[in-house]
Amino acid sequence: MARSFWKGRFLALLDYKTEKFIVAKNKKVGVLYRLIQLSIIGYIIGWVFVNKKGYQETDEAIQSSVITKVKGVAVTNTTESGLMVWGPQDYVIPPQCYYSVAGCCMLLHPFSHCNEMLCPKVLGGHCRDDEDCTEGETVVAGNGIMSGRCLRKDENSTGSCEIYAWCPIEKQFKPKGPLLKNAENFTIYIKNFIQFPKFMFSKSNVLETTDDSYLKKCRYDEKLHPYCPIFRLGEITKRAGYNFQDMSTFGGSIGIAIQWNCDLDKGYSKCHPEYHFTRLDISLSNKTIAQGFNFRHTRYFKNAAGEDYRSLYKVYGVRFNIMVHGKAGKFSIVPTAINVASGLALMGAGAFFCDMVLLHLMKKSDSYRQRKFEALK
Amino acid sequence: MARSFWKGRFLALLDYKTEKFIVAKNKKVGVLYRLIQLSIIGYIIGWVFVNKKGYQETDEAIQSSVITKVKGVAVTNTTESGLMVWGPQDYVIPPQCYYSVAGCCMLLHPFSHCNEMLCPKVLGGHCRDDEDCTEGETVVAGNGIMSGRCLRKDENSTGSCEIYAWCPIEKQFKPKGPLLKNAENFTIYIKNFIQFPKFMFSKSNVLETTDDSYLKKCRYDEKLHPYCPIFRLGEITKRAGYNFQDMSTFGGSIGIAIQWNCDLDKGYSKCHPEYHFTRLDISLSNKTIAQGFNFRHTRYFKNAAGEDYRSLYKVYGVRFNIMVHGKAGKFSIVPTAINVASGLALMGAGAFFCDMVLLHLMKKSDSYRQRKFEALK
Amino acid sequence: MARSFWKGRFLALLDYKTEKFIVAKNKKVGVLYRLIQLSIIGYIIGWVFVNKKGYQETDEAIQSSVITKVKGVAVTNTTESGLMVWGPQDYVIPPQCYYSVAGCCMLLHPFSHCNEMLCPKVLGGHCRDDEDCTEGETVVAGNGIMSGRCLRKDENSTGSCEIYAWCPIEKQFKPKGPLLKNAENFTIYIKNFIQFPKFMFSKSNVLETTDDSYLKKCRYDEKLHPYCPIFRLGEITKRAGYNFQDMSTFGGSIGIAIQWNCDLDKGYSKCHPEYHFTRLDISLSNKTIAQGFNFRHTRYFKNAAGEDYRSLYKVYGVRFNIMVHGKAGKFSIVPTAINVASGLALMGAGAFFCDMVLLHLMKKSDSYRQRKFEALK
Repeated sequence: MARSFWKGRFLALLDYKTEKFIVAKNKKVGVLYRLIQLSIIGYIIGWVFVNKKGYQETDEAIQSSVITKVKGVAVTNTTESGLMVWGPQDYVIPPQCYYSVAGCCMLLHPFSHCNEMLCPKVLGGHCRDDEDCTEGETVVAGNGIMSGRCLRKDENSTGSCEIYAWCPIEKQFKPKGPLLKNAENFTIYIKNFIQFPKFMFSKSNVLETTDDSYLKKCRYDEKLHPYCPIFRLGEITKRAGYNFQDMSTFGGSIGIAIQWNCDLDKGYSKCHPEYHFTRLDISLSNKTIAQGFNFRHTRYFKNAAGEDYRSLYKVYGVRFNIMVHGKAGKFSIVPTAINVASGLALMGAGAFFCDMVLLHLMKKSDSYRQRKFEALK
Repeated sequence: MARSFWKGRFLALLDYKTEKFIVAKNKKVGVLYRLIQLSIIGYIIGWVFVNKKGYQETDEAIQSSVITKVKGVAVTNTTESGLMVWGPQDYVIPPQCYYSVAGCCMLLHPFSHCNEMLCPKVLGGHCRDDEDCTEGETVVAGNGIMSGRCLRKDENSTGSCEIYAWCPIEKQFKPKGPLLKNAENFTIYIKNFIQFPKFMFSKSNVLETTDDSYLKKCRYDEKLHPYCPIFRLGEITKRAGYNFQDMSTFGGSIGIAIQWNCDLDKGYSKCHPEYHFTRLDISLSNKTIAQGFNFRHTRYFKNAAGEDYRSLYKVYGVRFNIMVHGKAGKFSIVPTAINVASGLALMGAGAFFCDMVLLHLMKKSDSYRQRKFEALK
Repeated sequence: MARSFWKGRFLALLDYKTEKFIVAKNKKVGVLYRLIQLSIIGYIIGWVFVNKKGYQETDEAIQSSVITKVKGVAVTNTTESGLMVWGPQDYVIPPQCYYSVAGCCMLLHPFSHCNEMLCPKVLGGHCRDDEDCTEGETVVAGNGIMSGRCLRKDENSTGSCEIYAWCPIEKQFKPKGPLLKNAENFTIYIKNFIQFPKFMFSKSNVLETTDDSYLKKCRYDEKLHPYCPIFRLGEITKRAGYNFQDMSTFGGSIGIAIQWNCDLDKGYSKCHPEYHFTRLDISLSNKTIAQGFNFRHTRYFKNAAGEDYRSLYKVYGVRFNIMVHGKAGKFSIVPTAINVASGLALMGAGAFFCDMVLLHLMKKSDSYRQRKFEALK
């Protein structure tokens, strides 16, 4: 008897139960319900699936490595430095710019170049006695530090505070124009290798070819040469919306954004990099304190006597900041199911709303309510 | 007739069908169901929408670029180096620290400074004959390499293995205190430009003003000057929970985290950076092998005879590691719809659960089951 | 009466309404429905929860900082440079490689080492008069720039264009073999500190121990020493699938990927880093233009007369590119609720599908439709 009990229960489980419906021939609510259903279907198919690609799983954690090479030669002839030839190893800082993800600095012109020797007896700032010169206090725009002694001829006269600094003191000097004038024609080669680890997908922005001379001659072109990432510096600045000559006096900061938005359902060959150039040292609102880009750079030497001395350069340069970002999408059942399911649940909400309209806002509402809700006695 | 057939079908499509319900006047299950509904509504509104901002789309792939400038001067007077003046271009390594996203090293004191010449006849390690000295084997804590020859006075005595190394051999020396004593007062200026590409939103952590002198005088303050990112090194170390003087002997590694958590629905002006400082070279559990931070640094020279020699510095320094992270959120219809829909589906689960209670756990359950399920004969 | 009105409404709200069902004893549709239900439950539990961990919230924005140290010494003896000892501070570029996230370059051999002096009277390219030599044009593979003058003995003979360049001109030279032969035995120590900010979780890839000598002696082993990140260079290259000796002539680019996939529900101690090594300068399809890795590197000197001269190195090296990525997951109620809810909504779709089968494809469909849909008269 137990066996037939469980058999009966099992067979009952296989019965199919379906809800009972009442059919209200109310065209207004009927039309309203169909409109709500069509809106939800339109939203799910049109907005969620087609526009937002809701059937895809995304990977936004792009892995990227960048190698850059700058090419170009310039000649300068100044009173301070004499005749000099500048190649990439001279004007790119750091010279080994290939490992630098963030940025390569390119020296536009060395300025305030002076051979300095350590010179502890520089004078600066008036004083009457040692108490006026605070030991350790920084002076002269931060180029030296007070020793604490006031150097005076005699007890009554006003003297100067002794300062430890490199001599000669750096002159406050503003550049009048760029030094490396044809820097506009230099080229930068940006090799970028990316990976989307979630989908085990990787690609490079350089054409895969055995032709050695391709990279020696080509220039980037969005349609003709999308996989030749060699850019003229003047071209980069123009695309950022600025004139290279204007920027080349005080320097600047250019952001090169390489964007990889890839729909992996379309295939490997449809995943292309896009290049965007912006100027980073001038904000959109144009209220910037410090336009341009400069830093101080030293080279150290020892003379025949073994004394230390250094050449100090204040360099104005163009800083290239390379940023790589991207997003990959690929079909996946989970987000598809979630979006379909949310559409179905929203239709349930639509039905609930139409029920409320039918049961409370129509002329025959009382009659509908009585028929819909069967009271148990 | 075909036309009226399709017209009939179309009109039937516009009929509104609504489920039939039975009303069980069972207050226990009724209250249970309303409680479940209120919990789900409370969860959706309170937890999902208000707390977790479930109505927003998020962008966690923040794009960031960092420029830093250290300011400060120190004077040192040692037996090895004599009198030296240290400016940012001397103690910041690499000198062009502006492009470095990861870190600027700041030299606290050069140590084991010795002028070395290449010296291939250094002796080290006892031997009886050439077989005891393995050619190519590294010795003396990795500073030299064996040539494979054993240098002995004669055949019977014990000799020393010949080593190729720079002379003089680097002394094992531990620093007793910091060299640049007022490094605590140096300041670091951290300019950070971020972008959230998904929302085309970008911002900088520096105040947008035309007042040139603002950045020359201000210091960071969370309430008064949140957009003046200039920090005293002593302040940074204090915020990390350590004393600068303790760290300045053996060096250390400080992590500066700039966090941008922005609710873009609140507007551009409410998106502020937050600064957190931690010490990276000591783990929380305090069981670290190598506290502090040091590395070797060489400068190359040629003497009058054209011979190569180099100055080797073992420097102990403070390494600043700047990490930028953030998350932006903005209202979007898709996550809102998904969360609303999940709430609705959960209410359906609640109804199913209450059905089970009604149909199996109540006194009148049999009667309810009979009325709910209409068997077809 | 108003009070009893609201009381009545409130009590009506506590009535429990449940849908009426008709029971169709149609085993075919019943079995179909149970199969659909089991598939959906199996998909939700097996695929979404167990396989994809759909009950977890994820953080893919891993924060990482990397410090590296290379160890090893080599001796070289060449005709150009003579006897030289190479330590990490000599062959790692930049020497202060500890702060570099992207990459450390390791010099395999200096080549084309020549002491150059600025030499503005170099000749190159034939010409008849000044018009044949365009001023400012780059020549000789980019090593010099034309001055615009044609140097001829007299008016009639053919001359050469004057070029500004460093002398002697860099020879086109291809290396025959590696210079630092035992570079294979050098070791690289990669310390990596990561953070998952969403879960306030941080960890390092170095064993937390007070034993000083552990890191001095250990080598990485996946099972025995997973927290000793010291790798032999030959081992790294072998794991990347290549022979170190083959790569060491022309150089190469090795990607070291440190992957942190952590299920934080399993605990802190189960979150381990995984190391993957790939060769970046040779693509999978094996059609690469430029295998290997090289760059030019200069050191500047002044001679006794104060004239500038420089040593130019064209270095072939191995570039290590360290990439850190990871994903952390932790249980969270929101994704759990969303996935459960989507399962429930999909079951509703399954019920709808079975209804369609029952009402249109079965023999008794008309009868079912009549009983299911109660028309209102």
